[in-house]
Amino acid sequence: MRMNLDDILKQVASGALAPAEAAASIAGSAEASLGFARIDLDRHRRCGVPEVIFCPGKSVEQIIAILRRMTDAGHNVLASRISPEQARTVREALPAAVHHEAARCLTLDVAPLPEPKGLVAVVTAGTSDIPVAEEAALTASRMGARVERIFDVGVAGLHRLMKHLDVLRTSRAIVVVAGMEGALPSVVGGLVDRPLIAVPTSVGYGVNLGGLTTLMAMLNSCVPGISVVNIDNGFGAGVAAAMINRAGDKP
Amino acid sequence: MRMNLDDILKQVASGALAPAEAAASIAGSAEASLGFARIDLDRHRRCGVPEVIFCPGKSVEQIIAILRRMTDAGHNVLASRISPEQARTVREALPAAVHHEAARCLTLDVAPLPEPKGLVAVVTAGTSDIPVAEEAALTASRMGARVERIFDVGVAGLHRLMKHLDVLRTSRAIVVVAGMEGALPSVVGGLVDRPLIAVPTSVGYGVNLGGLTTLMAMLNSCVPGISVVNIDNGFGAGVAAAMINRAGDKP
Amino acid sequence: MRMNLDDILKQVASGALAPAEAAASIAGSAEASLGFARIDLDRHRRCGVPEVIFCPGKSVEQIIAILRRMTDAGHNVLASRISPEQARTVREALPAAVHHEAARCLTLDVAPLPEPKGLVAVVTAGTSDIPVAEEAALTASRMGARVERIFDVGVAGLHRLMKHLDVLRTSRAIVVVAGMEGALPSVVGGLVDRPLIAVPTSVGYGVNLGGLTTLMAMLNSCVPGISVVNIDNGFGAGVAAAMINRAGDKP
Amino acid sequence: MRMNLDDILKQVASGALAPAEAAASIAGSAEASLGFARIDLDRHRRCGVPEVIFCPGKSVEQIIAILRRMTDAGHNVLASRISPEQARTVREALPAAVHHEAARCLTLDVAPLPEPKGLVAVVTAGTSDIPVAEEAALTASRMGARVERIFDVGVAGLHRLMKHLDVLRTSRAIVVVAGMEGALPSVVGGLVDRPLIAVPTSVGYGVNLGGLTTLMAMLNSCVPGISVVNIDNGFGAGVAAAMINRAGDKP
Amino acid sequence: MRMNLDDILKQVASGALAPAEAAASIAGSAEASLGFARIDLDRHRRCGVPEVIFCPGKSVEQIIAILRRMTDAGHNVLASRISPEQARTVREALPAAVHHEAARCLTLDVAPLPEPKGLVAVVTAGTSDIPVAEEAALTASRMGARVERIFDVGVAGLHRLMKHLDVLRTSRAIVVVAGMEGALPSVVGGLVDRPLIAVPTSVGYGVNLGGLTTLMAMLNSCVPGISVVNIDNGFGAGVAAAMINRAGDKP
Amino acid sequence: MRMNLDDILKQVASGALAPAEAAASIAGSAEASLGFARIDLDRHRRCGVPEVIFCPGKSVEQIIAILRRMTDAGHNVLASRISPEQARTVREALPAAVHHEAARCLTLDVAPLPEPKGLVAVVTAGTSDIPVAEEAALTASRMGARVERIFDVGVAGLHRLMKHLDVLRTSRAIVVVAGMEGALPSVVGGLVDRPLIAVPTSVGYGVNLGGLTTLMAMLNSCVPGISVVNIDNGFGAGVAAAMINRAGDKP
Amino acid sequence: MRMNLDDILKQVASGALAPAEAAASIAGSAEASLGFARIDLDRHRRCGVPEVIFCPGKSVEQIIAILRRMTDAGHNVLASRISPEQARTVREALPAAVHHEAARCLTLDVAPLPEPKGLVAVVTAGTSDIPVAEEAALTASRMGARVERIFDVGVAGLHRLMKHLDVLRTSRAIVVVAGMEGALPSVVGGLVDRPLIAVPTSVGYGVNLGGLTTLMAMLNSCVPGISVVNIDNGFGAGVAAAMINRAGDKP
Amino acid sequence: MRMNLDDILKQVASGALAPAEAAASIAGSAEASLGFARIDLDRHRRCGVPEVIFCPGKSVEQIIAILRRMTDAGHNVLASRISPEQARTVREALPAAVHHEAARCLTLDVAPLPEPKGLVAVVTAGTSDIPVAEEAALTASRMGARVERIFDVGVAGLHRLMKHLDVLRTSRAIVVVAGMEGALPSVVGGLVDRPLIAVPTSVGYGVNLGGLTTLMAMLNSCVPGISVVNIDNGFGAGVAAAMINRAGDKP
Repeated sequence: MRMNLDDILKQVASGALAPAEAAASIAGSAEASLGFARIDLDRHRRCGVPEVIFCPGKSVEQIIAILRRMTDAGHNVLASRISPEQARTVREALPAAVHHEAARCLTLDVAPLPEPKGLVAVVTAGTSDIPVAEEAALTASRMGARVERIFDVGVAGLHRLMKHLDVLRTSRAIVVVAGMEGALPSVVGGLVDRPLIAVPTSVGYGVNLGGLTTLMAMLNSCVPGISVVNIDNGFGAGVAAAMINRAGDKP
Repeated sequence: MRMNLDDILKQVASGALAPAEAAASIAGSAEASLGFARIDLDRHRRCGVPEVIFCPGKSVEQIIAILRRMTDAGHNVLASRISPEQARTVREALPAAVHHEAARCLTLDVAPLPEPKGLVAVVTAGTSDIPVAEEAALTASRMGARVERIFDVGVAGLHRLMKHLDVLRTSRAIVVVAGMEGALPSVVGGLVDRPLIAVPTSVGYGVNLGGLTTLMAMLNSCVPGISVVNIDNGFGAGVAAAMINRAGDKP
Repeated sequence: MRMNLDDILKQVASGALAPAEAAASIAGSAEASLGFARIDLDRHRRCGVPEVIFCPGKSVEQIIAILRRMTDAGHNVLASRISPEQARTVREALPAAVHHEAARCLTLDVAPLPEPKGLVAVVTAGTSDIPVAEEAALTASRMGARVERIFDVGVAGLHRLMKHLDVLRTSRAIVVVAGMEGALPSVVGGLVDRPLIAVPTSVGYGVNLGGLTTLMAMLNSCVPGISVVNIDNGFGAGVAAAMINRAGDKP
Repeated sequence: MRMNLDDILKQVASGALAPAEAAASIAGSAEASLGFARIDLDRHRRCGVPEVIFCPGKSVEQIIAILRRMTDAGHNVLASRISPEQARTVREALPAAVHHEAARCLTLDVAPLPEPKGLVAVVTAGTSDIPVAEEAALTASRMGARVERIFDVGVAGLHRLMKHLDVLRTSRAIVVVAGMEGALPSVVGGLVDRPLIAVPTSVGYGVNLGGLTTLMAMLNSCVPGISVVNIDNGFGAGVAAAMINRAGDKP
Repeated sequence: MRMNLDDILKQVASGALAPAEAAASIAGSAEASLGFARIDLDRHRRCGVPEVIFCPGKSVEQIIAILRRMTDAGHNVLASRISPEQARTVREALPAAVHHEAARCLTLDVAPLPEPKGLVAVVTAGTSDIPVAEEAALTASRMGARVERIFDVGVAGLHRLMKHLDVLRTSRAIVVVAGMEGALPSVVGGLVDRPLIAVPTSVGYGVNLGGLTTLMAMLNSCVPGISVVNIDNGFGAGVAAAMINRAGDKP
Repeated sequence: MRMNLDDILKQVASGALAPAEAAASIAGSAEASLGFARIDLDRHRRCGVPEVIFCPGKSVEQIIAILRRMTDAGHNVLASRISPEQARTVREALPAAVHHEAARCLTLDVAPLPEPKGLVAVVTAGTSDIPVAEEAALTASRMGARVERIFDVGVAGLHRLMKHLDVLRTSRAIVVVAGMEGALPSVVGGLVDRPLIAVPTSVGYGVNLGGLTTLMAMLNSCVPGISVVNIDNGFGAGVAAAMINRAGDKP
Repeated sequence: MRMNLDDILKQVASGALAPAEAAASIAGSAEASLGFARIDLDRHRRCGVPEVIFCPGKSVEQIIAILRRMTDAGHNVLASRISPEQARTVREALPAAVHHEAARCLTLDVAPLPEPKGLVAVVTAGTSDIPVAEEAALTASRMGARVERIFDVGVAGLHRLMKHLDVLRTSRAIVVVAGMEGALPSVVGGLVDRPLIAVPTSVGYGVNLGGLTTLMAMLNSCVPGISVVNIDNGFGAGVAAAMINRAGDKP
Repeated sequence: MRMNLDDILKQVASGALAPAEAAASIAGSAEASLGFARIDLDRHRRCGVPEVIFCPGKSVEQIIAILRRMTDAGHNVLASRISPEQARTVREALPAAVHHEAARCLTLDVAPLPEPKGLVAVVTAGTSDIPVAEEAALTASRMGARVERIFDVGVAGLHRLMKHLDVLRTSRAIVVVAGMEGALPSVVGGLVDRPLIAVPTSVGYGVNLGGLTTLMAMLNSCVPGISVVNIDNGFGAGVAAAMINRAGDKP
């Protein structure tokens, strides 16, 4: 069993532990004793960052094994980019798992999720961007954010976006998901002054280069204050938005 | 002196020219005899496409020499991307030349320009895009288009664009010049149904890659019907727009 | 039911609508009330731009569902890049749909198409470029353009192109489709003075980079006035050409 | 003088404005009447986002002119990437301007700046990253954030970072500025659970590709929740961090 | 039936053809009358350049149809990059076709091939480069070159190359096929003074980028006089080598 | 049978070989006579560099044939990147072959392997990097290195790495395998002063570009003394580490 | 003084040289004794390949020193990409040197040049490509080729090219120099069946990428038998063409 | 003053330090107490890794200041990529500094350098690669390696390399510096079985892309065991080679 640094030092002070043994313990099992070493486990439990399994390239057996190991350790788990076939097989083995089809995710929870607070808006340019957006929304939601979805409001029909200005303006963070030319974050960022995470998607063809053009365009936005995550990285955007959302609850 | 095909054949028919000589003449001086061979000269005179000199990398002596040779041949000439210093020296040698500072161009005309007709709108996202836009406007204007300028209406403040919808909707062609994320063509293209030429500019830094990102974003526009020219290619966009503009005058 | 801005204001003037309600209506349902908000629907009906479904990555069920929803709304629809298998299944469900094999498209029409007018020439360098060219031709045709096809006239045998100069010179717009080194648009553009849309195709291998080289070569054309669309984007080129073609019918 | 939408509608209701005139007014001067049209000006005044001038490529005359126009309009202004020579000349013309050498910025204020609140940590990997970091710090500070600088704590000597964990853990947002392999954001992100904005710098050579490698590496971070801005974009990172920082003050 | 230019002119001279008709004939059926128009057909017959079908992406039905059409026109045909399955089916339909497995080619000849003359050496760095080399060898051979194969003599064991210096030095042209770092052409080019065509192959992985690195390395060879063809383009290299080889037979 | 240079010269001196024949022999069979020509075979036997077969793209028949030829020549062989199916079939034909599943390798030995000496540490950032790491470990081990594996100690949880500092500090060479942002080599290199070979893996997505970003980031490491091999090149890293490891045994 | 292999062996046979000494001599001074070792010097003298100095980045002192060393060794030398200033200073020091301004080259000859034979055509698309073409022409000429220049016959005015078909068809090799879209080699290659070396130039801007697009387009030519050299590499193209040209003089 | 972990624990055991204070001390001043925290300073002193200043972009004042600070701390310092002008000014301020012109470095030593041991060979392909090679040689030498230089032995004249096989075979590590196609490391690696560090240089033009092609070619070497550093990174290669060289002195 692991001891933290305070415990080790108290034992040294009490004579229960020799200095040399303590030094070995601190150096040898850094994970237990050093200040930063316990962040990893603590952080997950305290913050509700969902443990995540990136499914592409993994066998169903591997996914099930990891799910079991993590839930045994008391963590709620999110498996992202899971295929319908993978999800079906996992749920046969682990019936408590939930398949979120639209988000291409599966979750398995062994602890209560946090109460939804604040507000994160998740916006998409087109319908093809929705799976990535749902992944972001699911992630942020599991990390304690109330989430509003505003889908299919791309720049080819901006009036659709205008109807949702109120939601955008009262959000603590906005996730904008877009493919192709990636113009929507600039348009939204020009309308509201909230932290905005742009997510490029691999929706497009030809010189889209699998989302690379979208990504680079977003990084060149003429609107300051927009930051960007990797192509199709709905999970990362959801975590970032949820972290920002929590800032509203802290001193 | 050159003869055209009809003349050669008539001479053959009249016996003035032996078949073998005619064959040699047709094969050997294609420029004179073949149908397509004379297009080149005819086209410039008939269409008013301005002869163009791309100045970067040329000495002032070279620019003056080309200007002289072309105007001697009866052509109006446009020198693009000319520096203020180059322009000053050219104008000392050729006082009839006109320096268009905002467009970074110099023109020297020996024939009347066509009357302005139709309407081409030239739009920019920012103020840094104006030199490229002015080059496009000057070019289209010299090719007979009436031109309206709508500058600095980028996506970070879309309301500025809205005031100009009437002009956009009555244009025969629209040139949209933008740097950075290159979103403006998509926004304009989503509002009007006119042929739209997008011009990426090298305005930006970092992952803008000298305009490459802007160019690729424009090519990925979610709005169909937008076509794109090379980075900073105001001249090409002006020619394309003027050609479309003339379509309105033809059967 | 939606009201336009004029109607709202008249009701305010007549007292039928309170100012506050009107303001809410204008701000809250932008799609209905703002000038630009209704463009989207109007544009499609008025201009005959075909609603388009990009089929790759969509299930047949999704394609059928979208076709139904759009045609129920009164729109003619074009499904692009449809596979033969997808097309067969769609036509079993929607027998009125037409499969255009050469263009890899399927159409479903519920309203009359516009009468063909003007002239758009669609040119290809090789036979492998034909599917993209047919997509462009079908699109332009459905938007009211008379279309002439000039296929397989690449630069390795230029004489084949020469026979078609008359058609090229009387076209209001020319679409040139080519893969590999993408030289054909420059050659055509050097022969005629009509607006020219170049479409790079992904035909090639090795350093062709899936059409990227072709695209970049076209953007570097030494002939001014050529504009370019995304790789394999026959639909976009068809829309652009048809918009230019219509310019000949407008004041 | 501009009226807002409510005022227009009240005048219509009162008969002071005819419906047709009102419609024209709403459509024609969108900037004044539409809800979103006035955001632009309001936003700057309300949020304290500093108006910014990107100096590279501008003449000193242009910089001075823009500074004058903006401050006349009541805005505080930040000129970024200003050279020492430019700054000196500007300050001769505008003695109230302040040159922030380390940040390569100049500011000219005509209104009080907001009180510093919350906490933004600005971290750099090396000393060469400091100018970008100072630009971020200055920007965030001017937008109302209290800022702590933690410089030169790169991964080649991680112990230097460890001393600052307390500051990092109590920050509302963290800006991490790094060049070369861009590893520092991942290391910091693995230690704390705060929103983290990564700023790649163009510090490096060879296959660094002017910061492109750094940028791409940061976007691939194995730590979720990190978002990224353009290369050397200290201003954008500062705005993003300040917006997040303000979230702690809002309901 | 087509007439050549001489015939047309003679008929004009004899009065059998009116000048106007002759002009129309020359302009309208360029393929028949213009000098360059008949090169295409003549060249193939005279030079023995094999007509080529690039099989990837073509159905067996298409391949068979093209083979039939070309052989009916009297051409020998080479089908490159044919799969074993495609080849088997083609040979069932066209038993006279020959499958060259090592070269991944199929040939169908209806005319005698030229006698082998001169000497072309085809060299590979590794065994994986052999299919491309065999395609080059087969092509050059069918165009009349005597061919020597020197395979698997890469730079990791240069002594293997040294044994073949005599063949290399008596070749009229050398084709060097290599993947990975593409160093072999430089080594061979440093040993002999014969025209050398380098063919990069897509053999490699990771940062090989599908042969792009190999190609670029070859273009940077420190040995002057090496020229390069597209990745895996054995056919093109074979044609180039055979053309050079023929130079030894011409005045 | 081959003679070496000394033998040839002695025979010349003894009159057993005419000078002309000797010259021909030296020039013609370089492999036998030149100093460097015999390195190839000698090197493998002396150094124990495993002969390697890169399996992707090879048929099982080819793999078996090469294994037989090499082992007949007395070499131990390592087949890398072998699939489970390929391995199973190979082992049916060659039951003495050993399948190393974790390393995706198969080995067939006909000579004793060297005794393990020295120490090579093989480190991975994540679990997905393990196959590449196992390939490196297996390779180094077969070349005579004692190997320690330190897996899954990436920068998102650095405390896990700290526990292994002792092993790292006593290694003669360290192989660090990482994907995504590739930060681990910099962190390890900052902690110890041993030769470090970094291996980028293709683990990642989006702007990871198949490992290219990871590779470039590693090449930009701020820690001097790190060198890099191709993406996923565990074999190359293993050879490099083993060569360094042997340096500890030489004068 | 160096001996060749034959001499060494004869001395061994005669007893004048001990076998051990001979072995040392062969191994230790490979440059003198091995067959391939003397190629380097022999090749230059025999073939007339001009020794070349690439001037960019070299000081005038360095250029003069290398010129002196090479001419002292009896070589004719060509200095490429020399600036007018460099050339002037060199000629002050070495008055026998000749400055070829159009080719940006300087030559210094101490031996007679070969007689011009055969025919190499050097073609350019535009006037900006001429310096590279002149470098190729000068190089080929110095290696014994008769050279014809055909300049400024780009695809925007193909009729200019047609006049020169006779020269092209009687050339032993053709060098085609072009920038921008690089289409001219394909057009020329479609008209004649002679070996064709394409030289991309860095003439262009924007997405030309310093000639990279031109290069890649040329490598994708639809005309088989075209091979390509590095961007602006007139020297390399001249060497390649001259080597091909000499093939016509050999058995 | 800093205490190490052992000291802290002993004081806790002796009652001289309360557990809480000790915990704070360990967490708060990681640099002093944690094992890895003191590595940084120790490493430099113990290993003789030269402290390095990368001069490009630094002012002479900055270089002098850093030199003073580092030497005051007792470190020997190497300033790399220093220009002759910078070096001259530095030496006026710090006359003890030594300018190594060929290596473009300046050194300032305040402690004795280690005795040269072992052997590192530094090889270049051409003369332009020498500055990078000298930087590597100087670095390795200052870290205690005996260094042999083998310059200008590129693949275009391999016989020059052969003379140096003995040195290569007795080196503990080999640094191979090359530009252009980067073939030399493969050739050297095929001849000897020593650890080989390849250094790409930015020598080349056109598609060399500033050394990127060279770098990628080296990473694709067909010879296993070669590892690569960043473009022009002579310093890094020198450190790596010296670390390997020291392995021969350790148990």
